[in-house]
Amino acid sequence: MNQDLLKIKESPLFWPARLEKGILHVLDETQVPEKLHYIEVKNTQEAVEVIRSMKTRAFGQFLVVLSTFLLEIENHKALPDEKLLDKLIETARALNNSRPTFPFSEVTVVVISWAQQAVKDKLNLKEYLVKNINGYLMGIRMRRLERVTKIAQVMNDGDSVLTHCNVSGELAMAARIAMDQGRQIQFYATETRPYFQGSRLTAWELSEIGAKVTLIADNAVGKVMADKKVNKVIVGSDRSAANGDFANKIGTYQIAVLAKEFGIPFYVLTQPSDKIKTGQDIPIEVRNPDELLKFKNKNIVQGNVEGFYPGFDVIPHELVTQSIALNVK
Amino acid sequence: MNQDLLKIKESPLFWPARLEKGILHVLDETQVPEKLHYIEVKNTQEAVEVIRSMKTRAFGQFLVVLSTFLLEIENHKALPDEKLLDKLIETARALNNSRPTFPFSEVTVVVISWAQQAVKDKLNLKEYLVKNINGYLMGIRMRRLERVTKIAQVMNDGDSVLTHCNVSGELAMAARIAMDQGRQIQFYATETRPYFQGSRLTAWELSEIGAKVTLIADNAVGKVMADKKVNKVIVGSDRSAANGDFANKIGTYQIAVLAKEFGIPFYVLTQPSDKIKTGQDIPIEVRNPDELLKFKNKNIVQGNVEGFYPGFDVIPHELVTQSIALNVK
Repeated sequence: MNQDLLKIKESPLFWPARLEKGILHVLDETQVPEKLHYIEVKNTQEAVEVIRSMKTRAFGQFLVVLSTFLLEIENHKALPDEKLLDKLIETARALNNSRPTFPFSEVTVVVISWAQQAVKDKLNLKEYLVKNINGYLMGIRMRRLERVTKIAQVMNDGDSVLTHCNVSGELAMAARIAMDQGRQIQFYATETRPYFQGSRLTAWELSEIGAKVTLIADNAVGKVMADKKVNKVIVGSDRSAANGDFANKIGTYQIAVLAKEFGIPFYVLTQPSDKIKTGQDIPIEVRNPDELLKFKNKNIVQGNVEGFYPGFDVIPHELVTQSIALNVK
Repeated sequence: MNQDLLKIKESPLFWPARLEKGILHVLDETQVPEKLHYIEVKNTQEAVEVIRSMKTRAFGQFLVVLSTFLLEIENHKALPDEKLLDKLIETARALNNSRPTFPFSEVTVVVISWAQQAVKDKLNLKEYLVKNINGYLMGIRMRRLERVTKIAQVMNDGDSVLTHCNVSGELAMAARIAMDQGRQIQFYATETRPYFQGSRLTAWELSEIGAKVTLIADNAVGKVMADKKVNKVIVGSDRSAANGDFANKIGTYQIAVLAKEFGIPFYVLTQPSDKIKTGQDIPIEVRNPDELLKFKNKNIVQGNVEGFYPGFDVIPHELVTQSIALNVK
């Protein structure tokens, strides 16, 4: 283990769910940055609710999935292993059904296959699972910290980086490293409608680590590129395919097309999956149009108007200059 | 005069300021569609205020400019012509300074040149100006109605038209004509951050005339184009140059680049100016970043974050499939 990785200052968005004394504390990202409020999650039902309501997103959802198995193992520790396995299968099913295209069903498959193997091999199911899940979490943590250092390496002195949505802490942490090494880095963050992750999370997070950050509307990307205000794009990915295609927050695709048009290098953080061959295999969730039609429960729109809110779009690998992938274990 | 033009059903946004009994009633577009509230404007100072605060936009501002001269002629009808001319020059100056890059300074120049000519030629200044300004307004009105019929002609049966910001009534009226002629037309309207003109004005206006309209975030344009959900783009222009370049609401430029990338025809409504040779000659107003950083006076953003909000961008004529221009008188 590289000891330097442990010294990186963490953003609250880097690890937004922590299990302490039998309770999972999940950062309510819809309240950031006004409040760093943590929702208490004690069982599968509450976990499904924080996922469905998008209180936690992306990597936070991944943490919730793994941690919910730990919660349920603790909640049902008196059960015999076979019964516990049934409970965990119920948990997996509920998590996978939390959203129409839940991106972490592969994770539940891994956990259940461990559990089935343990029962088959007559291992101590609880001990075996707790050890495996904690090992998995720790592995991911180290690989993400390694990726942070890789992102820092592509940040050159004087860079002006455009980003979209939020990269769960990694971009801000990488910028902090680059700046500590004496390189000036500034950012343009898109608002990222309709959830304003760029305004609420990314702009705040980057300003907290001391970077200069300028917020723009999603529709000003073409202008800042044409005006040469940005020289690099770095975005995250919700899911990534073996061929380099990836899905990310709606709007990433048109940024990639515009970056190509203006000759601006386009970087993406990926976690390649063997199971997903190409972007065509990634289902796109179409979310509730109310998120477009209302703001803080007030109607923005009147009349017989529909909304179309695809949560994500798929970016073909041809538009990617470089993928910065999580190392595979 | 083509009598058919008089039968076109008008949108409230087509002619958003009307002078009645010495008071100019200006539609407060920031309250549309919740309320059709008209602000009373009685003098230059109040006119400057409705322009500066963006209560009225684009064509509404043009109407306010011409009508403010009519108000001031009435307010100062007891003055001798030379003194009245001085008053009107003050009005012109105040209007031109209402915004950093006021798009209608050419209009004030025309009015003042009429006034100077009348004084020089010892005509009755008040009568001469009132007749000329009213003639100008009536001429513009007929030319805009003619343009509405031209827009209707480019709408084919089955078209799905993407639009951005708001085209001051003309697009909706054209769609109504096309639909009355038996052609099915549907629309995708962008929200148009930060002012939400698409959500508040365009979507409402199109739904009012009975068209199917779907609202999307500004960042979903690339996806709806890639998914072949739209086959035409029609937008307005705030200013247009002799060479076909034009300026319009921020975001129009990237839509034009994306339309070219996807081979989608791109139409723009223009009012060509001889004085503006190319898009380079159009100054771009950078507006108050608070419009990005707050929503209904609540902070969206926390931390030391700047905002960059260029109100407009310039679209080079190479990206335009067809300009639909106002006929020149």
